Amino acid sequence: MIAILRQGTTQEQTAPLIDWLEKQGVRVHVSVGEMHTVLGLVGDTEHIDMDMIQCLDIVDSVMRVSDPFKAANRKFHPEDSVIAIGEGGPKFGGGHFAVISGPCSVETPEQITYVAEKVKEAGADLLRGGAFKPRTSPYDFQGHGKKGLDMLLDAKKATGLPIVTELMDIRTLDLFADVDVIQVGARNTQNFDLLKELGKTTKPILLKRGLAGTIKELLMSAEYIMSNGNENVILCERGIRTYESTYTRNTLDISAVPVLKELTHLPVVVDPSHATGKRNLVPSMALASVAAGADGLMIEVHNDPAHAWSDGPQSMTPEAFAALMQQVRAVREVVAK
Amino acid sequence: MIAILRQGTTQEQTAPLIDWLEKQGVRVHVSVGEMHTVLGLVGDTEHIDMDMIQCLDIVDSVMRVSDPFKAANRKFHPEDSVIAIGEGGPKFGGGHFAVISGPCSVETPEQITYVAEKVKEAGADLLRGGAFKPRTSPYDFQGHGKKGLDMLLDAKKATGLPIVTELMDIRTLDLFADVDVIQVGARNTQNFDLLKELGKTTKPILLKRGLAGTIKELLMSAEYIMSNGNENVILCERGIRTYESTYTRNTLDISAVPVLKELTHLPVVVDPSHATGKRNLVPSMALASVAAGADGLMIEVHNDPAHAWSDGPQSMTPEAFAALMQQVRAVREVVAK
Amino acid sequence: MIAILRQGTTQEQTAPLIDWLEKQGVRVHVSVGEMHTVLGLVGDTEHIDMDMIQCLDIVDSVMRVSDPFKAANRKFHPEDSVIAIGEGGPKFGGGHFAVISGPCSVETPEQITYVAEKVKEAGADLLRGGAFKPRTSPYDFQGHGKKGLDMLLDAKKATGLPIVTELMDIRTLDLFADVDVIQVGARNTQNFDLLKELGKTTKPILLKRGLAGTIKELLMSAEYIMSNGNENVILCERGIRTYESTYTRNTLDISAVPVLKELTHLPVVVDPSHATGKRNLVPSMALASVAAGADGLMIEVHNDPAHAWSDGPQSMTPEAFAALMQQVRAVREVVAK
Amino acid sequence: MIAILRQGTTQEQTAPLIDWLEKQGVRVHVSVGEMHTVLGLVGDTEHIDMDMIQCLDIVDSVMRVSDPFKAANRKFHPEDSVIAIGEGGPKFGGGHFAVISGPCSVETPEQITYVAEKVKEAGADLLRGGAFKPRTSPYDFQGHGKKGLDMLLDAKKATGLPIVTELMDIRTLDLFADVDVIQVGARNTQNFDLLKELGKTTKPILLKRGLAGTIKELLMSAEYIMSNGNENVILCERGIRTYESTYTRNTLDISAVPVLKELTHLPVVVDPSHATGKRNLVPSMALASVAAGADGLMIEVHNDPAHAWSDGPQSMTPEAFAALMQQVRAVREVVAK
Repeated sequence: MIAILRQGTTQEQTAPLIDWLEKQGVRVHVSVGEMHTVLGLVGDTEHIDMDMIQCLDIVDSVMRVSDPFKAANRKFHPEDSVIAIGEGGPKFGGGHFAVISGPCSVETPEQITYVAEKVKEAGADLLRGGAFKPRTSPYDFQGHGKKGLDMLLDAKKATGLPIVTELMDIRTLDLFADVDVIQVGARNTQNFDLLKELGKTTKPILLKRGLAGTIKELLMSAEYIMSNGNENVILCERGIRTYESTYTRNTLDISAVPVLKELTHLPVVVDPSHATGKRNLVPSMALASVAAGADGLMIEVHNDPAHAWSDGPQSMTPEAFAALMQQVRAVREVVAK
Repeated sequence: MIAILRQGTTQEQTAPLIDWLEKQGVRVHVSVGEMHTVLGLVGDTEHIDMDMIQCLDIVDSVMRVSDPFKAANRKFHPEDSVIAIGEGGPKFGGGHFAVISGPCSVETPEQITYVAEKVKEAGADLLRGGAFKPRTSPYDFQGHGKKGLDMLLDAKKATGLPIVTELMDIRTLDLFADVDVIQVGARNTQNFDLLKELGKTTKPILLKRGLAGTIKELLMSAEYIMSNGNENVILCERGIRTYESTYTRNTLDISAVPVLKELTHLPVVVDPSHATGKRNLVPSMALASVAAGADGLMIEVHNDPAHAWSDGPQSMTPEAFAALMQQVRAVREVVAK
Repeated sequence: MIAILRQGTTQEQTAPLIDWLEKQGVRVHVSVGEMHTVLGLVGDTEHIDMDMIQCLDIVDSVMRVSDPFKAANRKFHPEDSVIAIGEGGPKFGGGHFAVISGPCSVETPEQITYVAEKVKEAGADLLRGGAFKPRTSPYDFQGHGKKGLDMLLDAKKATGLPIVTELMDIRTLDLFADVDVIQVGARNTQNFDLLKELGKTTKPILLKRGLAGTIKELLMSAEYIMSNGNENVILCERGIRTYESTYTRNTLDISAVPVLKELTHLPVVVDPSHATGKRNLVPSMALASVAAGADGLMIEVHNDPAHAWSDGPQSMTPEAFAALMQQVRAVREVVAK
Repeated sequence: MIAILRQGTTQEQTAPLIDWLEKQGVRVHVSVGEMHTVLGLVGDTEHIDMDMIQCLDIVDSVMRVSDPFKAANRKFHPEDSVIAIGEGGPKFGGGHFAVISGPCSVETPEQITYVAEKVKEAGADLLRGGAFKPRTSPYDFQGHGKKGLDMLLDAKKATGLPIVTELMDIRTLDLFADVDVIQVGARNTQNFDLLKELGKTTKPILLKRGLAGTIKELLMSAEYIMSNGNENVILCERGIRTYESTYTRNTLDISAVPVLKELTHLPVVVDPSHATGKRNLVPSMALASVAAGADGLMIEVHNDPAHAWSDGPQSMTPEAFAALMQQVRAVREVVAK
C-alpha cells in the first residue's frame, strides 16, 4: 500500500501516522519528494483499512499495490481451475469448453423439454431456463417459480442435460437441491448475504457480472463465495451499461475475457444473448467471445411454432443455434491450439 | 404503445398480429408511411408484453407511450405525498424538509450517542448509522449487526431522534421492528424479493437509486414496494457511476431531483456524502441539492477525537455540519417560496 | 416521424400544428388514445426539424422512424461498398479484408522503415504511423509533423505499402497529397468543418468513432464526408469510454461491428491497440473482431531493440504480430465462408 | 511519479531502469515490499514519459503524484483569476459573477436584438447566440455564419451587451475580431490545433467540457490555450454523457464546480440549458449551480411570438428568465457570504 501525503505536511504531522502503522505490524518506507512525501507500506497490509488512511487530513491519496482478491487470484493459484458439472458431465476451464443453452423463461413442460432436446442435438452441454425471473416491473411475468423448476428437472430427466437456473432469494435455496448450477443474476452480483450463503454450499455457481459492475467487483463477489468455502465459481460476462443503448441493450465487454483469464484462475463464460438483446447479434458476439478465449457460452434458444412471436427478441431458433455451434467449434479449434 | 413495422412488411404478415392484439383487448390504428407502417395500440396495453412484440420478425421497434409506473406516478396522484416519520416526527415532501445525519458505521455506544447529540443540536431531524454494512470485499468490516442496531436504538432513546438504517437481508426484518425508516441500499435497489417483503410492512422505506440505476428503474423499484401495499417510499439520489471517477467517486445527478419531482408524487432526498466520497464536496453538493428542490438531505457526520483519523473520507465534523445547516436553511428559504 | 402529444391536449391546440405540418408537405395521421394522441407524419419528413416539434408545449416526445443517415444507409445501397486503396492495392469491404499496421508514432527514418518491412513480411497490407499526434497534454510529444510524413513516404517507397496517417488540422491538407488513407482521429470525429473539407477530396478516409461517440454519431460523421462528395469512407471502432478503466483504457465495443454492417454498406475495421491500451490484450481482441465480421484491423507494432522500453504499452513486437496474423487468417477462414 | 514493479522482478532487471532514470535527472527511491518493489521518482519528473515507463515488461503500473497541469493549477497560483470582459464590463471569478444569455441560434436581426434587450432588462451581463452551429447531421441548419455574427454585433451595438459566440473552424478567426468572448464547443474541447491558435490571441475563451470529457482533460485543454500565452480562460460545465439519457440529454455534473474551484484558479460557469436539453429543468439546475459555487451561468432564452413553436426545447421565455434571475441573486447572496 502506498500513501501520498498532502503538500506541506510536516514531519510532526507524519510521525503519529507512521507510529500507528508500525504498531499494526507494517513497515513504512518514507520517500520525500519536491512536492509530496510518499509512504510505502510493506508487510501484511491486508488488515489496514484503506478508507481509514484516506480520510486523514494529511493524506492526498492511497493506493493498494496488491490485489484485494485472494482466493480467486491467479498469482496464488497459477493453474486454471476446472469446474466439473457432475460426474462425467461437462467441464469449464483449463482447456474445457461448454455451452449452456435454453429459453429465457420456462413456459410449459412441452416447451422446455422440446427446446432441451433440440439444443442437445445441436451440441449444447447444459440446459438453461428461468423459473424465478427478475423483472424491472412488478407488473411483468415473474416466472413460474417452483413449478418452473419442476419442469426444468423433467427436461433434465428427459435429455440428461444438467441444468442452470437463477436463484433470486436465498430463502428458496432448498428448492435448488437438484439444480446442477445455480445462477446469480446481474442484479444480485453484490447481494452479499446471498453470496455468503451460496459460499456454504458445494454447488457450482454461475456468477454474472453486475449491470454496471467493474471487473474488480466481479472478482470480489466471487471472493465472497470462495472465502465461505465454495470454490466452484464460473464467472459470466453479460454486457455492461454504457451510454450506447440505441442499437444494443448493453455493451458486451469481450475484453473482460482475457483480462479475467489473466487475473484469475476461474473459468469465464459469455452470455451474448442478454448483452445485446438482439437475436441477430448473437452469432457474431458468440464467435467473438470464443475467439477471445472464453471457456463457455450461454445462449438463449426458443421454439414455439404455434406462437412464433412469443420468443424474446434475443432468442435464436434451434436451427440457427445448430448452425452457430458448428462455427463455434471451428473458431475454438483455431484459438485453443 | 406504438409498434413500427419493418420496411417491406406486407398486409398478410401484419393481419395476424393485429388480430391477436385486438383479441387482447386493445384497438389498433394503422398508419402506412412511405418507408414504414406504424401501429398505434390504444386501450389497456398494460398487459401487452413489449418484449413479445419486439421479438417479431416484422417489427422494427416498439415504444411505450404511457409510463410503466402507476402507484408512484404523479399523473394519477397529482398531490405531493407527505411521508411522516412517527407521530409528531419529521416529514418529507409536500413542502416538508428533513435532514438525516450520523456516522457511516455504528462503532461504539459512546460514538453513536455522541454524534446523535451533536447532529440534533445542529438541527438534524433523523439519525443514521450503519449496523449491517454492504462492503465490496468480504475481508472488510461488515458492521456490528444486531449489536449495532441496539446501539442505534439507545442513541434514539437518548436523543429522541428517529433512526434510519440499512436492511441487507430480508431474513433479518424482525430485528428492524423499532427502526423508524428502513434503508434499501444501492446494491439492493433491484433485489425484488426484498422489495416485495418491505412492501408488506408499513415502515417508511428510504429507497436509494442503484449504483448505475436509471430514474425509471428507481421508480419501478418503488413500484415493487407500493404495489405490495406500502406507499411510504422516500426516494434517494446518491450519485451514479460514470466514466469520471478520478475526482469524485460517483457523479451526483442533481437533475434527478426535478425530474423525479415531475414524474412522481414521492419525496426525494439527496445523499451527497456517498455520491462524492469526499468531505470537502459535501457542503456545496448539499446546498445545490436543496436549491434544486430536494425534500431532504442525508449527510454523514463523524466525531471521534481520540482517533482523529478513523472518520471516513466522506464524513464532516459536527462543527462543519452545524455551519452547513445554517446555509441549507437559507437556501431552502429562497427556493421554497 | 411520430409525435406523441401531452395528455390533455385539446383539438384546438393540435389543429395549428397539423396545419403547419401539412404545409411543409407531410401527411399527418392522428391516433387518439386513452391517455395520449399520437401524430404519425408521413412523406418527406427529412426537412422537418425534430427539435422544433419537440419544443412545443403540447408535445410529449418525438421519434424519427426513418434513419437520419442517407448516403451511408444500407437500405438505399444494399451492396457492400468496396474501398480500394490505389490500383492493385488492398481493399476493404465486400468480402475483402486488410490489415493496417505500424508504430504509434513515426520516430526516425530507420525505425519506420524497419517496422514497415517487418509488418509487410508478416502480412500487413498498409503501414500506419503518426506524424501529427493528438496528445491530451501540451507538454507531451506532438509528433514530427511534416518531417514525420516524409519518413512515412520513404518507408512507403521502400516497401510498397500504402500509408495511413492522421490529419489533425485541415490547414495541413496539402501535405497529405501522397498519403493513401487519411485518418480522422477520435477527437476529430465531430470536427464538422474538417469532415466537410475531406468530403471534397477523393482520398479514402479512415474515420474513427469518437471517444464516447454513439454508432449513430459515427454514421452521421461519415455522412458529412459522403454528402460532400467523397464516398470512400472506412469506419473504425476503437473502444468507447465507460466506467471500466482500471484494466482496459477503453471498452472495445465489438458489437458495433455487426451493428454497423447491418446499418451501412461501408467497411468496418477495428483498432484493438488503442481500445485496450495494453499489448497483451491485442491478440485476443483482434481475433474477436475478425470473428465478429470486421473488414480489417489496425494494429500497433513497434521495434527498437536499443531502447526496449520506448515502445508504448499497446504495441506488439513484429514477432508477436506475425504469429497473430496466422491466427487472424484462420479465424477469417471460418467466418468468411 | 511512482512505478510499481511486477512481482518477481530481479535487481538485475531493475538496475538499467534506475540508471536511465537518474540520467534523466530524477532521483529514485526504492522500497522493496513482500510482493512488489516500488520506485519513487523525485525531482523534475515532468519530462519523463509515463507511457514509456508503463510499457516496460518489468513495470506493473505507474502513477503520477503531481498534477499534469501547470498554468491552470491553483497550487502555483492560489488566488482566483478574474476574467474581465472589456473595460468596465462584466467579470468572472474572484467573487465576480456574470450571466450569459440569449438564443441558441441567431435567426434574424429582429430576433437577436429583441432577445438581447429582454435578457439585458432581466439582468443578463453578456449576450450569446450561435452563428456557426455544430450539428450532428449535415442536413440540419448549420447557422447563418458571417451574417449571424453581423446580427450579433448589431445587437451588441443596440444593447451594449458584450457577446459570446462559438468558433468552430480556426480559419474563420478573423471574423471574430469584435466578438468579446470566443466559445469553444464541446466537440472542439480536444481540437488541439484550434486551442493552440486561440492561445496566441488575447481574447477571453469560454472553454466547454467535452461531451464525455474528464475534469483532467478539461484542465489540460485549458493548458493548451494558456501555455500558448492566453490566460483568459473561463471553464464551462455543460453536462456529460452517461447511461441516463431518457429524462435528461446529458447529466449535469454540478460536482465539477467545487472540484474545479479546488484544482484551478480559473472561473467556472455552468450551462444548464444544453446539459438537460429541457426547459423545465433549467431553473432548478441554474440555482443548484449557483449554490455549488459557480462563477456564472449560461442560459438559453428565446422569443418569437409569431412562431411560438420554433423555440428549442431547452430555451426559456424572457419572462421565465427574469423570474429565475431574481432567485439566482438570492441564492448567490447566501453562498457568496
